[in-house]
Amino acid sequence: MSDVNRQVVLRRRPTGLVDPDDVALIEAPMPEIGEGEALVRNDLVGVDAAVRTWLDGQPGYLPALELGDPVRAATVGTVVATKCGAYEVGDVVTSLGGFSDYSVSLDDVFTTKVGGPDDDVDRGAMLAVYGSTGATAYFGMHDIGRPAEGETVVVSAAAGATGSIAGQIAKEKGARVVGIAGTDDKCRVVVEEFGFDACINHRTADLAAELKEHCPKRVDVYFDNVGGPILDAVLGRIAQGGRVVLCGVISSYLSGDHPGPANYVKLLAMRARMEGFNTLDNWDRYDEANTELRRLMDAGALTYRSHVFDGLANAVPALNALFEGTNIGKTFLKP
Amino acid sequence: MSDVNRQVVLRRRPTGLVDPDDVALIEAPMPEIGEGEALVRNDLVGVDAAVRTWLDGQPGYLPALELGDPVRAATVGTVVATKCGAYEVGDVVTSLGGFSDYSVSLDDVFTTKVGGPDDDVDRGAMLAVYGSTGATAYFGMHDIGRPAEGETVVVSAAAGATGSIAGQIAKEKGARVVGIAGTDDKCRVVVEEFGFDACINHRTADLAAELKEHCPKRVDVYFDNVGGPILDAVLGRIAQGGRVVLCGVISSYLSGDHPGPANYVKLLAMRARMEGFNTLDNWDRYDEANTELRRLMDAGALTYRSHVFDGLANAVPALNALFEGTNIGKTFLKP
Repeated sequence: MSDVNRQVVLRRRPTGLVDPDDVALIEAPMPEIGEGEALVRNDLVGVDAAVRTWLDGQPGYLPALELGDPVRAATVGTVVATKCGAYEVGDVVTSLGGFSDYSVSLDDVFTTKVGGPDDDVDRGAMLAVYGSTGATAYFGMHDIGRPAEGETVVVSAAAGATGSIAGQIAKEKGARVVGIAGTDDKCRVVVEEFGFDACINHRTADLAAELKEHCPKRVDVYFDNVGGPILDAVLGRIAQGGRVVLCGVISSYLSGDHPGPANYVKLLAMRARMEGFNTLDNWDRYDEANTELRRLMDAGALTYRSHVFDGLANAVPALNALFEGTNIGKTFLKP
Repeated sequence: MSDVNRQVVLRRRPTGLVDPDDVALIEAPMPEIGEGEALVRNDLVGVDAAVRTWLDGQPGYLPALELGDPVRAATVGTVVATKCGAYEVGDVVTSLGGFSDYSVSLDDVFTTKVGGPDDDVDRGAMLAVYGSTGATAYFGMHDIGRPAEGETVVVSAAAGATGSIAGQIAKEKGARVVGIAGTDDKCRVVVEEFGFDACINHRTADLAAELKEHCPKRVDVYFDNVGGPILDAVLGRIAQGGRVVLCGVISSYLSGDHPGPANYVKLLAMRARMEGFNTLDNWDRYDEANTELRRLMDAGALTYRSHVFDGLANAVPALNALFEGTNIGKTFLKP
């Protein structure tokens, strides 16, 4: 095994998109593991919006990254050496291994064993479906959206990691599911692969008119990943008793600019509701989420798609892909 | 009894504030009552925001007013003649008698007997507390706000008919209650008569700073009667798990302009909720509301204040008072 562990570290806090000079690919020494530790080869790094927010230095559920730290991210990997009774060599684990060839895991809440040496583990699914991404879709739909059979559900960023799963959960409940995405290609995938009933390209369509066409009975549930003018347009079409699941504001993560939705007044006229949530509040309910997601996967009602960037040298395009709208499905970096 | 029934009728749909030429005070013939009808002398006409919206010709729960119709409004009155078995002369009833000296009541959902000939009925309370106004405060607080002991509740238009009751309901639950109103006079009444813990004059104060001072533990419940920049400011101070009760947007009834609250993103960060409701959805729960409001009145925990305009000739100032911010408490017109 190499004695070098390549890592992408934070050099400077980005403003807006990540600049190549904001990070550096360095060669650190391979970690020596101590008692209670395991060395994990990171097979796939999950790239999601949270990773970008961690670069900003705002503490949240986890402490802020310091300059010089490896970029934090969820990973799925394989145990290659262990001095921890919880893991044997060959085990497949998810952890917060970050943008790094190797990482050290403890037997703690950040690491979960998802398979043994002889299991054929779908590593992508461990991050795209059974990790925070799928749990976010599940908690948002299950706790707030609660779509009933025959209701109309709209999902923005429908081709994205969370949106694609949120829509499929609603579809399995018997809802009519309409996606919103930013390219015709994405819209095609949303309908053909993820099984949505329709998908609107918000960059080319008259959004209000298309929402009217595709949601003739208005919108009972809106799973909002983007905020901004799209949120405003869907609020304009909200149904009586509608539920808006506030999952993200990717349209403003970078700019910090959050235009208010003037159509919030429709919540009043339609006795509707808009509610935010945070997946990490429900950390203790991941088993519940994963059980349901597993049921959907086994029933063939849930599929995911990967967008893999190859090599740590591609860290910057991988980090920016989410915000440039170029990705379809779950974004990964393969160290 | 006079053979004339004076009525304020709609001549022209107002834009913005009501212009004197938008309505006319006419002398109609005194109604002849038929079988099943009672003639009611309107003792007090309740003036609320709904009355103004009815002038716009947008159908809602009730059909739109036509030009020439008497201005519709809730009334409390006394039966002066009856051919209806449900009422005897001297009964006190609430109904939709409108801006009129007399009106005709049937034994239907729009008329409620609230006292007999020998009862000493607090007529103002029948509209200010036990009608739609109190029910609105009750449903909003009880169903959506749900303040718990020790939580912080903010109420806008706190000196108004609904806000003053909403705040007192929350206060009785053991919450810290902070009002927002538009004059120092109103703020004084809100604290001294309605028993709020504090009241902020949004026209003179730095609202964000005052909210921070008066709500050190942030805002668990916001009962919003106004929308606009005040809603935005309170959202900026919302607590984790906070609830925003959308009751009205009086700031934009007239202009039709509803600026969106950019701080809606705080709902996401704080896992908070914003929800609209409509009192008339809960028509079948007025008994529940009135029972609770009666309990508070009997316990001395609830008081109301009247702002009475005298004479049908003052219909226009009475209609505009709500929007000009000159009223304290429930606005009445005494025909």
